[in-house]
Amino acid sequence: MPLAFTNDTIVALSTPHGIGAIAVIRMSGKDTYPIIQKYFRGSEIKTNGKPSVLYGHIVEENSIIDEVILTCYHAPKSYTKEDSVEISCHGSILIQRKIITCLINQGARLARPGEYTQRAFLNGRFNLLQAEAVADVIASESEAQLQLAMHQLKGGVSNQLKEMRTQLIDLTSLLELELDFGEEDVEFADRKKLKNTATSILKEIHHLSDTFQYGNAIKNGISVAIVGPPNVGKSTLLNNFLEEEKAIVSNVAGTTRDIIEDTMIIEGVLFRFIDTAGIRETDDYVESIGIERSKKMIRQAQIIIILYDHFVKKQYVEDILSETRNKPYLLVRNKADQSDISIFEHEISISALQHINVDILKKHLIELSGTNVSPLDVTVSNVRHYEALRNAATALQNVLDGIDNELSLELIAQDLRMAIYHIGSITGEVTPDDILGNIFSKFCIGK
Amino acid sequence: MPLAFTNDTIVALSTPHGIGAIAVIRMSGKDTYPIIQKYFRGSEIKTNGKPSVLYGHIVEENSIIDEVILTCYHAPKSYTKEDSVEISCHGSILIQRKIITCLINQGARLARPGEYTQRAFLNGRFNLLQAEAVADVIASESEAQLQLAMHQLKGGVSNQLKEMRTQLIDLTSLLELELDFGEEDVEFADRKKLKNTATSILKEIHHLSDTFQYGNAIKNGISVAIVGPPNVGKSTLLNNFLEEEKAIVSNVAGTTRDIIEDTMIIEGVLFRFIDTAGIRETDDYVESIGIERSKKMIRQAQIIIILYDHFVKKQYVEDILSETRNKPYLLVRNKADQSDISIFEHEISISALQHINVDILKKHLIELSGTNVSPLDVTVSNVRHYEALRNAATALQNVLDGIDNELSLELIAQDLRMAIYHIGSITGEVTPDDILGNIFSKFCIGK
Repeated sequence: MPLAFTNDTIVALSTPHGIGAIAVIRMSGKDTYPIIQKYFRGSEIKTNGKPSVLYGHIVEENSIIDEVILTCYHAPKSYTKEDSVEISCHGSILIQRKIITCLINQGARLARPGEYTQRAFLNGRFNLLQAEAVADVIASESEAQLQLAMHQLKGGVSNQLKEMRTQLIDLTSLLELELDFGEEDVEFADRKKLKNTATSILKEIHHLSDTFQYGNAIKNGISVAIVGPPNVGKSTLLNNFLEEEKAIVSNVAGTTRDIIEDTMIIEGVLFRFIDTAGIRETDDYVESIGIERSKKMIRQAQIIIILYDHFVKKQYVEDILSETRNKPYLLVRNKADQSDISIFEHEISISALQHINVDILKKHLIELSGTNVSPLDVTVSNVRHYEALRNAATALQNVLDGIDNELSLELIAQDLRMAIYHIGSITGEVTPDDILGNIFSKFCIGK
Repeated sequence: MPLAFTNDTIVALSTPHGIGAIAVIRMSGKDTYPIIQKYFRGSEIKTNGKPSVLYGHIVEENSIIDEVILTCYHAPKSYTKEDSVEISCHGSILIQRKIITCLINQGARLARPGEYTQRAFLNGRFNLLQAEAVADVIASESEAQLQLAMHQLKGGVSNQLKEMRTQLIDLTSLLELELDFGEEDVEFADRKKLKNTATSILKEIHHLSDTFQYGNAIKNGISVAIVGPPNVGKSTLLNNFLEEEKAIVSNVAGTTRDIIEDTMIIEGVLFRFIDTAGIRETDDYVESIGIERSKKMIRQAQIIIILYDHFVKKQYVEDILSETRNKPYLLVRNKADQSDISIFEHEISISALQHINVDILKKHLIELSGTNVSPLDVTVSNVRHYEALRNAATALQNVLDGIDNELSLELIAQDLRMAIYHIGSITGEVTPDDILGNIFSKFCIGK
């Protein structure tokens, strides 16, 4: 239990802000029942046993604030494992505000973002990896995101990590025993076995961190730049995608004001078609500016679609091509309804306007994204987990190098402990308070 | 039971749209349990008894959509008095959509606006007056609105209406008995008693409909026009109100695009400070246009504040004054910090800039609004109820006139039945389907 703040009682609106049929206010903590009893008039509140559903009113100084349904959960059988209640009231903003104000006046305090889930984690409801998956579940926009987040919520790679950690802890125990007997030159830890185990775990870690590119693509969407000369039908292609999928998430301004994104879901995977807003106005400029714009987009994207038509100069496409470096790209010739003469060998010829071969283009996109390969349940999608795995891998590599170079036992044990620490930090066995705070601050309030 | 559509099963999102910690989906109707059992995996669902809270997952074709809390209500112990469940899921839009889609695929249909409350009414949970109060509770922005809506939800004038209706029905029975024995010239109904009862009920109805002005003011806010010459400090006064109250509801465009409103709550009552948008630009015009503008605002407002300073020509204010006719108004001289010479006897001198006497102005506003007088529990605030009362009053007046003019018994009985009909229409004893449909279509979906 790294943080000791579970002693007070927190309250928050858990449903989205705004007017609706109903709203749900959550309160959790040791004073939940003393506080709610001051305001609830209705069926008798039992303070233990199964969750119960009570009809009644929230009353302040003989004035009814609202008619409510009160759902009572009793520690440890609640989301937070603390005493907690959910007040389902009418969805008026005024009522929400009045009820929360009442509860605060009696000693509850407004919950911080993610504080319910943080308490659930601290009280052992699930590990940190699962707690983080809660936010991913809520933020899911695509099928693939949701499936991935659900797998994480159910444990994801937790068991695999736990198994690795146990093996490493066992090894460390032997090394430490040897250290205790240091003077006597006894070798408890079989160097060969140590090396084998570290090697096999390192392999597993590499395998897991290799899934990150895929997991991250699922989680954050795959950025695609469509570059090429003006008037080759870029907008038509985008509109064609949008029209066919009907699953437009939104036209969002990106994280920097410089980028505009059209996001859409293709076969359950989120794609972000990026554009550089500032340069939008230069569509009519000479080609040299077009190239500059393309370079910028290529830097920002994971996949490049180079779109051109039969009027294009081969050299122009080759110039762009030389910028893509190692990024996956597709050569796409549009307006295939007007000309059937190939310009490049591996190009895909489509007609965005006539809906010809756009499905084939989509299949290529999915293929390049790599989202059709890995099984979701052993996938790492969280950058924090990825970094911890990279750190654990470095530490384990140091262990192996240390054995090979016959370094002192203390140094090898130190590296082993670092590896254990980093693996444990993923599921929250060891996680400093500031990192915890940072993780939960990204949640919404009320969760 | 005027409408017979309670045979199917309805589903809707009941919490506001958008992303939040949790969302609640409601389903109600006879197939609620067969449908939910197809998707819910968790604790066993009991199909009778007290409401129960179950933890589990919504699963479609072996793929988990979400981890949920299922609250089960069993007919008749639910809001709609039908079998119903509430699914509390993670607040992802994707999850909400997927769950609702599943339930619809198994035979539920999307609920119409207000359909849950309509079913609650049709199944006798409350009368129509109370059902309408549910929407008022949700829409409440001010304390006074909420208190009034809560009184209506608890019954409001229902008992009084019921009592009137019973008395009138008793009278009609006697009249009808007399009609049956028509040939025999027997007088069952004492004409004097009939007249007394009708007179006393008519008085009650007048009293109730007199409260409408007040109730309507509470419910819809009180419109106030601040008129006067340019540069007398109108904006400063408005800002001063806004600043002091901190309870700005919003700057809303009014029902017509012609009107801009600043709304604010003073002592729990909603005031709407109206402005005529189209004429805003003419602030610098000559006075004659100022007068035209003032006239327009005066027509639209319930209370007029005539604001001027020590430079004003008395005739100008008197010109405006002559436009107010019977509307309540306040003469307010601003910039009292610059001059203490009164221009009119009953003026209130303030300094909006120096915050002098603004509180006194507010007290006058509350007083003129009449919102500080009537007890809320016998107040009519709904225009439909008001019209029904007016119609009942007309019918009862016809009864009285009929008796005085010795009209035929049939005609008098006819008018009595009209009065009974109109009174009954308020609480929904008799309400045509189209009126019911109209009432509930104004609700939000999911309530």
